[in-house]
Amino acid sequence: MGRNGAEFALEAARAAGVEVCFANPGTTEMDLVVALDKVPEIRSVLCLFEGVATGAADGYGRIAGKPALTLLHLGPGFANGIANLHNARRAGSPVLNLIGDHATWHLAADAPLTSDIKSLAASVSQFVRRSATPVEFARDLVDGVAAATGSPSGVASLIVAQEAAWEDAEGELPDLEMAAAVAAEPAAVAEAASRLRGKGAQAGLLLGGMLDGEALEAAARIRASTGCQVWLDTFVPRLREGRGIPHFDAVPYFPEQAMETLAGVESLVFVGTRSPVAFFGYRSVGRSSLLPEGCETLGLSGPGQRPGPDLLALAEALETGPAPGVADAPLGPVAEGAIDVVSLGLILAHWLPEEAILVNEAATSGLGWGLYGRSAAPHDVLSLTGGAIGQGIPNALGAAVAAPDRRVVALQADGSGLYTLQGLWTMAREELDVTVIVCANRAYRILQAELGRTGPAEPGPVAQAMTDLSRPVIEWTRLAEGMGVASCQVSQNRELQAALEARRAERGPYLIEVLL
Amino acid sequence: MGRNGAEFALEAARAAGVEVCFANPGTTEMDLVVALDKVPEIRSVLCLFEGVATGAADGYGRIAGKPALTLLHLGPGFANGIANLHNARRAGSPVLNLIGDHATWHLAADAPLTSDIKSLAASVSQFVRRSATPVEFARDLVDGVAAATGSPSGVASLIVAQEAAWEDAEGELPDLEMAAAVAAEPAAVAEAASRLRGKGAQAGLLLGGMLDGEALEAAARIRASTGCQVWLDTFVPRLREGRGIPHFDAVPYFPEQAMETLAGVESLVFVGTRSPVAFFGYRSVGRSSLLPEGCETLGLSGPGQRPGPDLLALAEALETGPAPGVADAPLGPVAEGAIDVVSLGLILAHWLPEEAILVNEAATSGLGWGLYGRSAAPHDVLSLTGGAIGQGIPNALGAAVAAPDRRVVALQADGSGLYTLQGLWTMAREELDVTVIVCANRAYRILQAELGRTGPAEPGPVAQAMTDLSRPVIEWTRLAEGMGVASCQVSQNRELQAALEARRAERGPYLIEVLL
Repeated sequence: MGRNGAEFALEAARAAGVEVCFANPGTTEMDLVVALDKVPEIRSVLCLFEGVATGAADGYGRIAGKPALTLLHLGPGFANGIANLHNARRAGSPVLNLIGDHATWHLAADAPLTSDIKSLAASVSQFVRRSATPVEFARDLVDGVAAATGSPSGVASLIVAQEAAWEDAEGELPDLEMAAAVAAEPAAVAEAASRLRGKGAQAGLLLGGMLDGEALEAAARIRASTGCQVWLDTFVPRLREGRGIPHFDAVPYFPEQAMETLAGVESLVFVGTRSPVAFFGYRSVGRSSLLPEGCETLGLSGPGQRPGPDLLALAEALETGPAPGVADAPLGPVAEGAIDVVSLGLILAHWLPEEAILVNEAATSGLGWGLYGRSAAPHDVLSLTGGAIGQGIPNALGAAVAAPDRRVVALQADGSGLYTLQGLWTMAREELDVTVIVCANRAYRILQAELGRTGPAEPGPVAQAMTDLSRPVIEWTRLAEGMGVASCQVSQNRELQAALEARRAERGPYLIEVLL
Repeated sequence: MGRNGAEFALEAARAAGVEVCFANPGTTEMDLVVALDKVPEIRSVLCLFEGVATGAADGYGRIAGKPALTLLHLGPGFANGIANLHNARRAGSPVLNLIGDHATWHLAADAPLTSDIKSLAASVSQFVRRSATPVEFARDLVDGVAAATGSPSGVASLIVAQEAAWEDAEGELPDLEMAAAVAAEPAAVAEAASRLRGKGAQAGLLLGGMLDGEALEAAARIRASTGCQVWLDTFVPRLREGRGIPHFDAVPYFPEQAMETLAGVESLVFVGTRSPVAFFGYRSVGRSSLLPEGCETLGLSGPGQRPGPDLLALAEALETGPAPGVADAPLGPVAEGAIDVVSLGLILAHWLPEEAILVNEAATSGLGWGLYGRSAAPHDVLSLTGGAIGQGIPNALGAAVAAPDRRVVALQADGSGLYTLQGLWTMAREELDVTVIVCANRAYRILQAELGRTGPAEPGPVAQAMTDLSRPVIEWTRLAEGMGVASCQVSQNRELQAALEARRAERGPYLIEVLL
């Protein structure tokens, strides 16, 4: 018996290195679902909501360095996944979406689920194709792998006409043709080196993208050799962190503080990112750039491009010495008493197992982690890159699929966690080793801060109500149990310590609701 | 003290009849949030997820006949609301989205949350504007009300630059300028009458849109006078139903059955809808239209247009007699034993209070309701019009806000309910009188049926797993309690009867998980 387009294309994906499919399929994807049984090397992970599938693919992509598939249903199903694809796009995370569309002959009928999928996909994708035959489908899928993992890496989306899946397929599987990675030209590296050399703290180096230990060591050597300042993007998609690993401060979130931090810099070189801009445009600030007037900028690589090679080349051009030793900040003792955002970070840093992956969507509750994360055992941190909340639980799910031997921790604000809480169920179903720490301040605390910045001295009752999650209380332990995940609630430092210590002997998903 | 653009525009909205705002705001909407306190006539309802806000606005619009505002955050926040806006679009439901955008001068910075909002909005909206000054904002908001409630009615989206909200506003509030409703021309009505007259059952009349008792009575008179066949769209946005109300069969969901139903018709007139097409294009069917070859069609009004006036005009042109009496089908007794999809519908029809609003997203579990709903006390039904699942809980929420004196029941499939379960929290917060009946078959049962239609005789384990929600079990009673909604679980007919009877003396939200 011959194979159909769905089977043929999934075979091509497997041959191109795809190992996972985060799926939330519908009727137009049934041929693909049937074909998944024929390609068992691709692990199928069912999600209850598309935003979970896309956020999981983002987390997977950041850790695995290659795309998982998502399997999504037409325009509305894809739309449910856009917010987390927006984060993936901003992270340069490799993701490959399969969007099952109507058969081509059915499009003109404008059936109830028909919509403009191409425009939706283009809003978050650097590669969009519509495949209408089995041969196109396999070819486009392999090209999509190449596009997602290219330079810049990012989101690729394939709109699959139903007949491309159900028709018989003939021919050879297409080859994966990867474009050679684009690294900065030697002349650009030399120019960047000249901008940093001999300027001391008037020169700055801004780092973004997927930052591993090697890239950070190169940056530390450059700093030691030139005396330049080094900063990280406010939100870095993947960051190596912990004892023995060079640490650099991030550009602060609020523009006033960011501009104060960057005030003295006359020349900025950036790698794996771009010239820094404010997250939001505030009336009181009146400008987007965070750099002082007249500051020169030079980018060696942009968002979605790997910063490591450029940093190594730059360190070489500067003839730096070996990396200086890292003086680790000690972790102080944890006091008795109620948990606050500072003690939360301290306790977590004490406990965090080596080689853990920490997904940070803690927002305002992440203050303590920001202070103490650098003093924990070596680990990787994934952050909210695009500001589209609801990334944490799905990212953690995907990271756990990518790295089954590593502990995954989701440090999760309660407000944003509610956007994609359905991811808990998939953690239970797949028995993933994720510890979800919900920071329950029962408010949109960041919006309360924003109200204080932009609104009247005393917001009215409606404005206060629009940032308040305490009425009724959201019981995260019940939500977790409803999704099949065991849980506990803690409010005291020693309770949190005990709950985390108990996790050392356990694997699998668990949720700790921390009352703040 | 002067007012700013946000306050000015909300005043204009209030003057244009807007009474409710379903909000899930972020930083770019803070001036609007502050202004909500200045316009207390607009009720602000906080939602935990944008798809809840847009689905609530859809349910509100179907019942109130005018738009609620939604308040959504930039492109990713809006994207989370697209699926339920797709349903609203297909329903012709009036909805007016306010999407807070960056300040205009901040757009070029391509800040992390920047995306192509216009393309996203255009995919579901019949009116899209970007307002960059207070005067534009107020004018566009009032024009948006007119567009949402025009003919066709539907979704209007306003992208609000931050400066349009924060700048000082001067001048008079703009007037609401409603275009006169477009009704069918007398010549078209006469032509439709001639197509129905004297053809008996070879002529057909297809009804869609917001169908009230008067519209259905006119259709019943037309049928009695001409002998034509009358059908409803498979999914009608709002349908009057129950004892004493003319009942018509809907076009079946699966195309083979639909084509069999429509096989004998030689001429079809449609009102408030369009020529019927299959929901999906099946390889085995090979065509989109559900009508027999050669069938003539004539549309008096399309989707989003009110069918009532055209039906009355058509009845008049046909000089029909008074509406025939309706022979109500009796409701049989409920047997002992376990609940199944048939007994579920029977029990619900027995219990349903007069003037209830039933939101039907039961999918395959709605079979019994489809049999017995017509025999319940008079009520209105809202259905899933666009196929984008996750509509039920939010629609019920919005309907309850629109009609606080009516009982609202959400007959909810479990798989689709998980897309927007966060709506339960808003029901609790606003103390809305909604009874959510979750039909827990713990499967994507419709996809199991589709697998059986398109796949192999025996789907493989992966395909089976992708439609299975039983591992782990989702405990809806825990989820409800986590969101602040009281609940129970039932599996026996008498348990369901008792749980429903107990509701008669209670108001407020309650969830009944029905094990099927």
